[in-house]
Amino acid sequence: MGCKNCCSICLQCLFGYETNVMLVINNKGVGALFRLIQFMIIAYVAVYVCWIQRAYQDTDSVISSVSTKVKGNILTNTSIEGVHVWDVPEYVIPPQGEKSFFVLTNVIPTPGQTQSKCPEIPSEVTKCESDSDCIEGHTEVHGNGVQTGHCVQYSDTIKTCEVHAWCPLENDTIIPKPALLGAAEHFTVLIKNNIQYPKFNFRKRNLLHHINSTYLKNCTFDRKTDPHCPIFRLGHMVTEAGEDFSVMALKGGIIGILIDWNCDLEFPERFCIPKYSFSRLDNKNPENNVAPGYNFRFAKYYKNNKSIETRTLIKAFGIRFDVIVFGMAGKFNIVPTIVNLGAALACLSLVTAICDWVMLTCMKDRDQYAKRKFIHLNQNGDSVPLVSKSFKQFILYVHFFFFYAKLDLL
Amino acid sequence: MGCKNCCSICLQCLFGYETNVMLVINNKGVGALFRLIQFMIIAYVAVYVCWIQRAYQDTDSVISSVSTKVKGNILTNTSIEGVHVWDVPEYVIPPQGEKSFFVLTNVIPTPGQTQSKCPEIPSEVTKCESDSDCIEGHTEVHGNGVQTGHCVQYSDTIKTCEVHAWCPLENDTIIPKPALLGAAEHFTVLIKNNIQYPKFNFRKRNLLHHINSTYLKNCTFDRKTDPHCPIFRLGHMVTEAGEDFSVMALKGGIIGILIDWNCDLEFPERFCIPKYSFSRLDNKNPENNVAPGYNFRFAKYYKNNKSIETRTLIKAFGIRFDVIVFGMAGKFNIVPTIVNLGAALACLSLVTAICDWVMLTCMKDRDQYAKRKFIHLNQNGDSVPLVSKSFKQFILYVHFFFFYAKLDLL
Amino acid sequence: MGCKNCCSICLQCLFGYETNVMLVINNKGVGALFRLIQFMIIAYVAVYVCWIQRAYQDTDSVISSVSTKVKGNILTNTSIEGVHVWDVPEYVIPPQGEKSFFVLTNVIPTPGQTQSKCPEIPSEVTKCESDSDCIEGHTEVHGNGVQTGHCVQYSDTIKTCEVHAWCPLENDTIIPKPALLGAAEHFTVLIKNNIQYPKFNFRKRNLLHHINSTYLKNCTFDRKTDPHCPIFRLGHMVTEAGEDFSVMALKGGIIGILIDWNCDLEFPERFCIPKYSFSRLDNKNPENNVAPGYNFRFAKYYKNNKSIETRTLIKAFGIRFDVIVFGMAGKFNIVPTIVNLGAALACLSLVTAICDWVMLTCMKDRDQYAKRKFIHLNQNGDSVPLVSKSFKQFILYVHFFFFYAKLDLL
Repeated sequence: MGCKNCCSICLQCLFGYETNVMLVINNKGVGALFRLIQFMIIAYVAVYVCWIQRAYQDTDSVISSVSTKVKGNILTNTSIEGVHVWDVPEYVIPPQGEKSFFVLTNVIPTPGQTQSKCPEIPSEVTKCESDSDCIEGHTEVHGNGVQTGHCVQYSDTIKTCEVHAWCPLENDTIIPKPALLGAAEHFTVLIKNNIQYPKFNFRKRNLLHHINSTYLKNCTFDRKTDPHCPIFRLGHMVTEAGEDFSVMALKGGIIGILIDWNCDLEFPERFCIPKYSFSRLDNKNPENNVAPGYNFRFAKYYKNNKSIETRTLIKAFGIRFDVIVFGMAGKFNIVPTIVNLGAALACLSLVTAICDWVMLTCMKDRDQYAKRKFIHLNQNGDSVPLVSKSFKQFILYVHFFFFYAKLDLL
Repeated sequence: MGCKNCCSICLQCLFGYETNVMLVINNKGVGALFRLIQFMIIAYVAVYVCWIQRAYQDTDSVISSVSTKVKGNILTNTSIEGVHVWDVPEYVIPPQGEKSFFVLTNVIPTPGQTQSKCPEIPSEVTKCESDSDCIEGHTEVHGNGVQTGHCVQYSDTIKTCEVHAWCPLENDTIIPKPALLGAAEHFTVLIKNNIQYPKFNFRKRNLLHHINSTYLKNCTFDRKTDPHCPIFRLGHMVTEAGEDFSVMALKGGIIGILIDWNCDLEFPERFCIPKYSFSRLDNKNPENNVAPGYNFRFAKYYKNNKSIETRTLIKAFGIRFDVIVFGMAGKFNIVPTIVNLGAALACLSLVTAICDWVMLTCMKDRDQYAKRKFIHLNQNGDSVPLVSKSFKQFILYVHFFFFYAKLDLL
Repeated sequence: MGCKNCCSICLQCLFGYETNVMLVINNKGVGALFRLIQFMIIAYVAVYVCWIQRAYQDTDSVISSVSTKVKGNILTNTSIEGVHVWDVPEYVIPPQGEKSFFVLTNVIPTPGQTQSKCPEIPSEVTKCESDSDCIEGHTEVHGNGVQTGHCVQYSDTIKTCEVHAWCPLENDTIIPKPALLGAAEHFTVLIKNNIQYPKFNFRKRNLLHHINSTYLKNCTFDRKTDPHCPIFRLGHMVTEAGEDFSVMALKGGIIGILIDWNCDLEFPERFCIPKYSFSRLDNKNPENNVAPGYNFRFAKYYKNNKSIETRTLIKAFGIRFDVIVFGMAGKFNIVPTIVNLGAALACLSLVTAICDWVMLTCMKDRDQYAKRKFIHLNQNGDSVPLVSKSFKQFILYVHFFFFYAKLDLL
């Protein structure tokens, strides 16, 4: 008794190794079951968790920057405008080459608009018979201006409410068919995409290292022959999205250019390559839709000789291409590895529980096993084989219970 | 001895089942504690992990595409411009209907600017008395042009440095009040949003399947009556963000339209619906801020009769609406399930450790328990009940230590 | 036998506490190994998992809104345009101050273009000798219009195919050097960034609380002296990205302004501050590149006295600044905590397996240990010390096997 004794106890605590006392049973059934479940769990970890799901990896989301450049010219010959050549600054809006760009395919121009008064386009709510049908200052939701309160002649037979507006009003009831710039399907777009995974300090471009500039100047993307060429024909993209360019060009729409940068950074950098896919993003189903297609209005402003502002209003139908970059990169990290390994190990302890249950209920020698597996300690501190018997009875009761329950059901 | 024996050992290794030998104690205290902690862990897994946190799910981030379309007309009557009707191509910038759109609410126009020389707007740094106060080629940070080095009359009493600039200069000291286009609060915007979760191959639109086009043409979003209508009144959104439209219209600001697509893909697709919310994103607190509100300048360029370029500079105040789409989708995946199940199982082993500690230190019969639980093996390989005694002494020492420590503190 | 007995069995099941029977071995080697591995795992969890990787946290991705405002004026003096002052509405495109803004640094203007016919710019594919070399309606990929089928004089010595186009054509073979707006490096940009982590209901701005508006009006970002000032000099950003502004200004490029909002929300809100960094995003390597630099074309449209539309085409070279906001916030959550704790606990069970293996194969007293650790049960249900012997033999066999295998290899 004293420090020496105290120290020896401490040392015993530190270096005394505790290990479970095990009961070894030579039963082929339970043994085989045990090994089988064990094997299944190990196989699940090795094949599914590690190989397929790569759960030993830490992940990061992609950060991306995109620039685009469209090329192509179209000549149109209409009765209103005559011969007109459309080049990139005219039909790509906005012109900067952002990741979302719009290519004009159909146009309803309204030249010579000035601020004045004119009769509304006839519709159920704008038709009138006298001034009392029009309200001064009223704005129709789908109208083109603010009502003056007068009812005026629109044509020989129709009277409509007069509006303050940019007159003459646009009449967009008839959409040019076929689309004015339907030949836009032959245009090409160069997409430059720069990505990074900041967590792994990884950067890459879709202009791959092994491709030289001579090839890039002449190639066009094709899933089979040129899968890494970043120059896309508009018509090809629309076709891959399952649409008909000439139909889509009429009323416009939105096409997603999806660039998938999912990468396993365990492999060398050259295996991390973008995968392109295309799909239509807007709803072409007319049933649960409003304003199908894609269009917007913009204007070019002029001042005439008398310094009065006039404008050409353009209702622009066209296809908006949204470059959508997504992806996750994975790289080995000890934390998810330990987590997955630990979880699998913990599940192995389930195996023992299952096999114990099988051993103690289904085996012929279950009483022997139970007697040896469990050491019972009664309240007086003596070990007695009491529960072993009770346990056997309990199992019997359970069996009887299910037996009678079945009889009742029949 | 030989191959037959060797095989039998191998088989024994493979099919010999090892199971722990257990000591069963009929002590209600320890037993109840054990079951209680076990129950708590199982309840945590079932209720919190599985039900609330849905930790058995694999997750994916949303990918989204947005298009917007504003509708509405305003009539203004100012002394400078006279009667003017503002329509969408004039007050929505940019006009394409991107996910971030700006609605003009207040304007300071400066028409007739040409490249020439004129006196600077008076301020502390631009006022001068003679040419020596002005530096040729100098550019003030908050100035409007490049100084010529001359000091000229701005008004009858004030002289300022002359600048090369687009003259006449804009004077933006007085902001129109009330806002010129304050009635913009009655405008509506249709927001079309298409999302996908690429990992689960799930796509959806905010124009829900069960809503027909007749409803969509006339509805306006209202949290209670029309929560799925994708047409929003600008004033309603600003009010929901906790702001006053007429105040915000004066100097502009940024409103976030947040669309939350958090979805549990275990449920049918129709339960995955967007939740809209609105909040002001810019800082209206003037204390730690510069340039409060939201404004920018743009110009319309003209050429007059003599082919000299003139422009109308417009300082545009207004509200930028940023449509921000976010969300995570979850779907059952075996990896996170195993990880969470395994982790919970591993924590169950902690229960045994705690109960063992209670059993061996707090129970009346702790010596009996320890004697039966631990089989001691001394260096000679014989089992002796030595440690059991030492352990008891150790516990006593610990108790004495705390007892004396307490006495000392008093 | 009856309900009373049945109940007592149930109670015994509920409150009978089962604990492992342990064998305690006083072997310093195994004990030390056990404690060492145990210590290493606990240290890994405490230091790496909790402290460095913060694996006890739930995470959320940042949602962000950005507005930008450029300031600065430049005076240029060219033979074509004469003295011209460039202000923000002229050189920032688009003018709205979005998160991606373009600053003009070099310009090739082509004034006075109208829709007409003119000879193509000479190149290998556009040069011709007679009309038969030109195809009516043909569009060259890198051409400026649609061919009329005629071969006309371009200059005294060169004939090229005539095209329908906006004439006169732009000749962009000579890029102004030095860049026309090279002084743009002195411009400043104010970046306002508002972020939120919706899962944690956390919002913050890059205009920090403790900074007052007086400071913000005069500061410029500097990594050492003013790391929280949101006003950046363009030249400073390009230099930090490792580029030379005067070189980059010639042909343009893309600079990423990366704002890192990685935050540990366990700490007070004031510790969550943005970290700025800058890098060039486009590819300046000419080998695997097309169209290096960054440029686009836009036009200003005019109508002359005779109402014929003319335009000034501008090929704009410049630097696009992309504000890229990224980051993850972490906050304590019970699920990842339990998962990591559980996984570590499960790994502790590996320790026992390793130490058991050491104890049963490497120790002098391994037979004694095995005899005590394993209780063997033969098919007749009697425990016999048979396997213990066999196990010893098995170990011997394994040793012999490796011994002979080694001999063979030598």
